[in-house]
Amino acid sequence: MHSSTKQHNFSAGPAILPPSVLKEASQGVRNLNNSGLSILEISHRSPEFDSIAKEAEALVREIAGVDDSYAVLFLSGGASSQFFMAPMNLLGENETAAYLDTGVWSTKAIKEAKNFGNIEVLASSKDRNYVYIPKRFKKPKDAVYLHMTSNNTIYGTQFQKFPDVEAPLICDMSSDIFSRPIEANKFGMIYSGAQKNIGPAGVTLVIVKKDWLGRTDRNLPSMLNYMTHVEKGSMFNTPPAFPIYVLMLTLRWIKQKGGLAAIEKMNKSKARLLYKEIDNNPCFHGPVDKKDRSLMNVCFLPTKKEFTAPFLEMCKNVGISGVKGHRSVGGFRASIYNAMPRRSVQALVNVMQEFGKKYG
Amino acid sequence: MHSSTKQHNFSAGPAILPPSVLKEASQGVRNLNNSGLSILEISHRSPEFDSIAKEAEALVREIAGVDDSYAVLFLSGGASSQFFMAPMNLLGENETAAYLDTGVWSTKAIKEAKNFGNIEVLASSKDRNYVYIPKRFKKPKDAVYLHMTSNNTIYGTQFQKFPDVEAPLICDMSSDIFSRPIEANKFGMIYSGAQKNIGPAGVTLVIVKKDWLGRTDRNLPSMLNYMTHVEKGSMFNTPPAFPIYVLMLTLRWIKQKGGLAAIEKMNKSKARLLYKEIDNNPCFHGPVDKKDRSLMNVCFLPTKKEFTAPFLEMCKNVGISGVKGHRSVGGFRASIYNAMPRRSVQALVNVMQEFGKKYG
Repeated sequence: MHSSTKQHNFSAGPAILPPSVLKEASQGVRNLNNSGLSILEISHRSPEFDSIAKEAEALVREIAGVDDSYAVLFLSGGASSQFFMAPMNLLGENETAAYLDTGVWSTKAIKEAKNFGNIEVLASSKDRNYVYIPKRFKKPKDAVYLHMTSNNTIYGTQFQKFPDVEAPLICDMSSDIFSRPIEANKFGMIYSGAQKNIGPAGVTLVIVKKDWLGRTDRNLPSMLNYMTHVEKGSMFNTPPAFPIYVLMLTLRWIKQKGGLAAIEKMNKSKARLLYKEIDNNPCFHGPVDKKDRSLMNVCFLPTKKEFTAPFLEMCKNVGISGVKGHRSVGGFRASIYNAMPRRSVQALVNVMQEFGKKYG
Repeated sequence: MHSSTKQHNFSAGPAILPPSVLKEASQGVRNLNNSGLSILEISHRSPEFDSIAKEAEALVREIAGVDDSYAVLFLSGGASSQFFMAPMNLLGENETAAYLDTGVWSTKAIKEAKNFGNIEVLASSKDRNYVYIPKRFKKPKDAVYLHMTSNNTIYGTQFQKFPDVEAPLICDMSSDIFSRPIEANKFGMIYSGAQKNIGPAGVTLVIVKKDWLGRTDRNLPSMLNYMTHVEKGSMFNTPPAFPIYVLMLTLRWIKQKGGLAAIEKMNKSKARLLYKEIDNNPCFHGPVDKKDRSLMNVCFLPTKKEFTAPFLEMCKNVGISGVKGHRSVGGFRASIYNAMPRRSVQALVNVMQEFGKKYG
């Protein structure tokens, strides 16, 4: 019995992965490519794993359109470790970095960065509990970089356009990476935990401009220095082998689906379906400014508080899981990442319509 | 077809895991406990994962005999990250820590620690390429801790007894954790990458004395502060969920086998079998001082250099993999971790005997 035949998994993350990826990953745990060995028990220096790691890197480069002037790293420690590693590696003590504050994750990135240089927060949408993306802000002056969170899982907002500034962008794309085409050359660095669109928890993708590295003279622990991982091809120490393997399988799936343009088209179609229902159904409304709505995390609130429990119950009864909203927003949230099939979104829309008829 | 029926996997790490663990892990990737969801796609805040994490911690405490005065953490970044996190968290700038140098990993730990305080290397076995464990050294004076590597994967040496010193021990047990009973209260901290005896790559077990934490006033990034992970039960950020799941399954297996005393008995029996052959076979010899021989990594050299290639070929022909020695030692190395069945060790011994008859 396959998982996706039983549950519509709207979890915000770790999140749904393509059934074909889960199937192959499951097989790899028992017997990797008929090697007679499990992916869990082979050396990271073996030819088998080496080819997995190399294919993962090649797929990142191909899918994202990232050339050799960027390093592609597979690290551990999550995006949360990049909050401090980015400024630790890239920002001098007397230099300034600019940040946009679009929610909890931006706020954490800002907090961690403050230990390493001058941090200028150019704009924040905190005034309205982060239901919009700030668009007007003064251009950062002499900033080494501008940091942002491209998609905000908790609030359901997303940058639809990246700001045009002189400074290179550093972007935490943890919750929308590879959900749409990327203009890679706008970015000095892109980082992302794998566990939404590109794999399971336990590996972090870092894409960073090579000529940017070594620009500060901090004496860093080897493991915290990007240069270490560039020089050792992400194998300075034993890498998180299985998460990298599943990431590679997921990237193969993205490529097979037609790459980022095709993926974006599917994501837009799914999001349109759901937002349309939210806007039309008398029992629900969307708190996020329409132009800033996320294609990945669709937040919606009940028009009456007492709708919450029965709607969640109705969802549960048809095998829809993970739609309870984040505690800081309330209501509901449907995370519809790359691997979410349109028919699951339709199943949710059907329940909303049924609920609307009953309670609306 | 199950892996272990096809290959005798002597890989140094990531390494062999019990077939029953691989089978259940494979099933969990498709459908975790009949939840209809994969372990790869459920939230780390879900009741399903919460119970996995709690069981993992409880099993560590039970198996190691670790009480509530210690924190049990599941981190990422490998033992290599503990090389700097331990001194960063526990050693003041003007304080001294003592280290024993028993090989590459000790040397790396020493190098990373030097950024954080005074490091006194009490003894080293470098003079003989680390083929023994130094036993006589001056007692560390006023050292905050004494750091050591309990088992040295590359050279095949192992502490058979931990030194009696006043300072608490910090021990990197990455390659022999839970292979034998632990006198937990001798240690201020134990750490271990999972990928030898207790799981796949991607999670690091840290056991640390709680009242030791917060003893330095360094302003640490949240992710690098043990206190963060203690307060958040290793869920400050998304943890490496699948590696933790497989670690939990592996600990269940250890418990089911009878715990550490029973495991040690099996390990001793396997090691005895192999060392006996090394000592008796005219084609091989063991470079390590007998009293310091590792029960986990059995290094042996050919008595003639030209034996190397044909012996590896003969191993390959009977499905024995991973016995090529580390480049810095040469010859052969058989890693016989907990999950290695005695019959695989016997299969290796058989090949050695056959080789001895042909070439000896």
